[in-house]
Amino acid sequence: MNSVNETTRDRRRIETQDRILTEARRLFAETGYDRTTIRAVAAAAQVDPGLVMHYFGSKQQLFARAAETESRPIVEGTAEEVAEQLLERLRASLIDEPVASLAVLRSMLTHPDAADEVRGNAHVRGSNIGKAIHGVDGALRADVLSAVLIGVVLGRHLLKLDQLADADPDKIVELLGPAVRSLTKG
Amino acid sequence: MNSVNETTRDRRRIETQDRILTEARRLFAETGYDRTTIRAVAAAAQVDPGLVMHYFGSKQQLFARAAETESRPIVEGTAEEVAEQLLERLRASLIDEPVASLAVLRSMLTHPDAADEVRGNAHVRGSNIGKAIHGVDGALRADVLSAVLIGVVLGRHLLKLDQLADADPDKIVELLGPAVRSLTKG
Repeated sequence: MNSVNETTRDRRRIETQDRILTEARRLFAETGYDRTTIRAVAAAAQVDPGLVMHYFGSKQQLFARAAETESRPIVEGTAEEVAEQLLERLRASLIDEPVASLAVLRSMLTHPDAADEVRGNAHVRGSNIGKAIHGVDGALRADVLSAVLIGVVLGRHLLKLDQLADADPDKIVELLGPAVRSLTKG
Repeated sequence: MNSVNETTRDRRRIETQDRILTEARRLFAETGYDRTTIRAVAAAAQVDPGLVMHYFGSKQQLFARAAETESRPIVEGTAEEVAEQLLERLRASLIDEPVASLAVLRSMLTHPDAADEVRGNAHVRGSNIGKAIHGVDGALRADVLSAVLIGVVLGRHLLKLDQLADADPDKIVELLGPAVRSLTKG
C-alpha cells in the first residue's frame, strides 16, 4: 500500500509541476519576465505560491525550466540545403512557435538569461546556424540571418505587425526566400 | 527685475526637464520600461522624484516624452531608390541608433505604448515604408521588411549578437542588400 501511495503522490507532484510550468510559460510569453509574478503563476495553476517556490526555488529558476524547449532539427548540408531547411523551420515557427520559445523572445530584451538563451541560439533559432554557414563572413552572415529570423518571428507573434501577423506562412516564406538564400550562400 | 528672474527660472526649468529626459531615455534604453523607476530617473538626474512627477505626471507620460525621436527622412521613389534609401537608413542605425529609439525597441515587448510606436512605424523604422512599397503584396512586404530591419538593429544594439555587434556597418549593409532589394521590389 505504501509504495502505491508513493507512486500516486509522485504522479500528482509531476502533474502539479507540469501545470505550474504550463501556466508559467504562458505568462512569460504573454507579459515577459518582469511582469510575471510567482503569485500570478500560482493563481493560474491553482496552487499556493509557496508550492511554486518549493518546487522551483525562485522566479529565475522557474523561468529557466519554463524556457526549456525541445531542440530543433540540426541544419546541415550545402548552402542551398541549409537555406531550404532554415526556410522550412521558419515556416514551422510562423505557423506555431512553441510557447516556451515565445517566453524567451518576449523576455530577451529585459532578462539577461533570456538574452543569453537567444545569443547562444540554444533554443530559439536552433543551435547550429553558425556551424552550418561557411565561406567568407560566414559567422557574420549567420548572425545577420539569426537577427532576420528573430525579427520576423517577433513581428508576427509578439509585435503583431498588421499584415505579417495574419499572412499565409507560405507567402511569408516565399517572400523571404531570396533574403535567406543570399545570406546563406554569401 | 521680475521678468529677468522669470526668464532665468524658465531656462532652469527647461534645463532640468531636459536632464530628466536624457536620463530617462538612457535608463529606458538600458533596462526597458518595467525596470525603469521614477526614483532611478530622479537619482540619475539629481532631482527629487516629486519633481519628475510634477513635470511629467506619470512614468507612462515620461516614457512617451522620452521616446519622442526626430522623424527620419521619408523614403520614396522607384523600388530601387527606396531600397537604397532604406539601406542608407539602416547604415545610420547600425552606426548610431538614437537613444530614444533604443528606449522604444527595448520596451516594445513589454510595454503596450512602445509596441504601438513600433507597429505604427512612427519613429523607429521611419513612418512610411508602407507607403513607399508598391506592387503585389506590397503591404506584406513592407511589414516583413520592417521586421527584418528591427531584427537587425535589435541584434546589433540590444541582443548584441557576437559578430553582428562588432561588424563594420558597411559590411552588414552589403550583406543585407539582396534581402532588402528583393523585399522592396517583390
